[in-house]
Amino acid sequence: MTTTVTRPLSKQPIPDHAKRVFQGILFEVYQWDQPLFDGTTQTFEKLKRPDTVLIIAVTEDHKIIIITEQQPGKSPFVGLPGGRVEEGEEVEAAVIRELREETGYQVKELQLLDNIQPISKIDWAVYTYVATGCTKFRGSQVDAGERITQQLVDFDQFVEIASQDTFADIELTLKILRAKLNPKKMIELKELLMNS
Amino acid sequence: MTTTVTRPLSKQPIPDHAKRVFQGILFEVYQWDQPLFDGTTQTFEKLKRPDTVLIIAVTEDHKIIIITEQQPGKSPFVGLPGGRVEEGEEVEAAVIRELREETGYQVKELQLLDNIQPISKIDWAVYTYVATGCTKFRGSQVDAGERITQQLVDFDQFVEIASQDTFADIELTLKILRAKLNPKKMIELKELLMNS
Repeated sequence: MTTTVTRPLSKQPIPDHAKRVFQGILFEVYQWDQPLFDGTTQTFEKLKRPDTVLIIAVTEDHKIIIITEQQPGKSPFVGLPGGRVEEGEEVEAAVIRELREETGYQVKELQLLDNIQPISKIDWAVYTYVATGCTKFRGSQVDAGERITQQLVDFDQFVEIASQDTFADIELTLKILRAKLNPKKMIELKELLMNS
Repeated sequence: MTTTVTRPLSKQPIPDHAKRVFQGILFEVYQWDQPLFDGTTQTFEKLKRPDTVLIIAVTEDHKIIIITEQQPGKSPFVGLPGGRVEEGEEVEAAVIRELREETGYQVKELQLLDNIQPISKIDWAVYTYVATGCTKFRGSQVDAGERITQQLVDFDQFVEIASQDTFADIELTLKILRAKLNPKKMIELKELLMNS
């Protein structure tokens, strides 16, 4: 069921000769000598972190799963299910696993909506997937580092929730606002999510 | 002319007892033991980096300054003038300095439009200012790590450029798209930028 997707390029890639100067729990720090426009060089620094997935999960009766997530030491936030791609894990396998863990839903079909590197100073890819035909097969099973509640909403409610400035996934908010400004795009998005 | 602005809070603050485990050129890495919901603890990690400013600079004849910036090893990008707040520097002093360095323009009046912490895993504040009545007093003076060209655009052109998905400042793009969806907000934005 899973296929390998291409990793998006960074706008400012870490060169091959860069040195890893620190390895933490989540972040690695790389440094390298970067030639400047006048021929001098300067030490540049950039981070690397595990890639993440975001999932627009649509149930078999055409509802979209929105979650409210609480993490220790952080205000609760409303957004999409998702999480980190583990070391050595295929991206689509991470989508299937994260959706199962966070919501208890099982994916029928996956489609890549978007893959970007959002921050130029961090080597970090974010993959957004549309997962359709999702069916519930058990409760969610999150670890002690998360508390998650879910709600099922229809397409119009989804558009309103994802338009709010409190919504956690800013790239999706951008996409939704662009669709609101362009009826053709909104129809395409609705078809992608609802007609399957 | 400058006043002290309040720094926006992080959604997931680094606690006081966190330890700095790495100090790089741009980034510092902090770690701490975070109690989880089940009473166990886990080591959490978060970064700190210098705050930055973004400037919507409006000239005395009501044009907005858009820049195209090239940095070594990075594709050129279209966005707003701006840069890092130096250690010990007031935020508004950084606005005045960055605008002068990057564009050669001098600020007459400053107004804070927005201050946020965009990324929950990085302690990093971004301040967006509207600078009106700007006058040119010399050429730009950027260092060997940047190449900058500038263009002066009217309000409608500004709205179009800042709406593009290639525009570098995603938070401003969001604000512009929201204004496009809400005529009252668009009028307010236009008055803020043009009626001074």
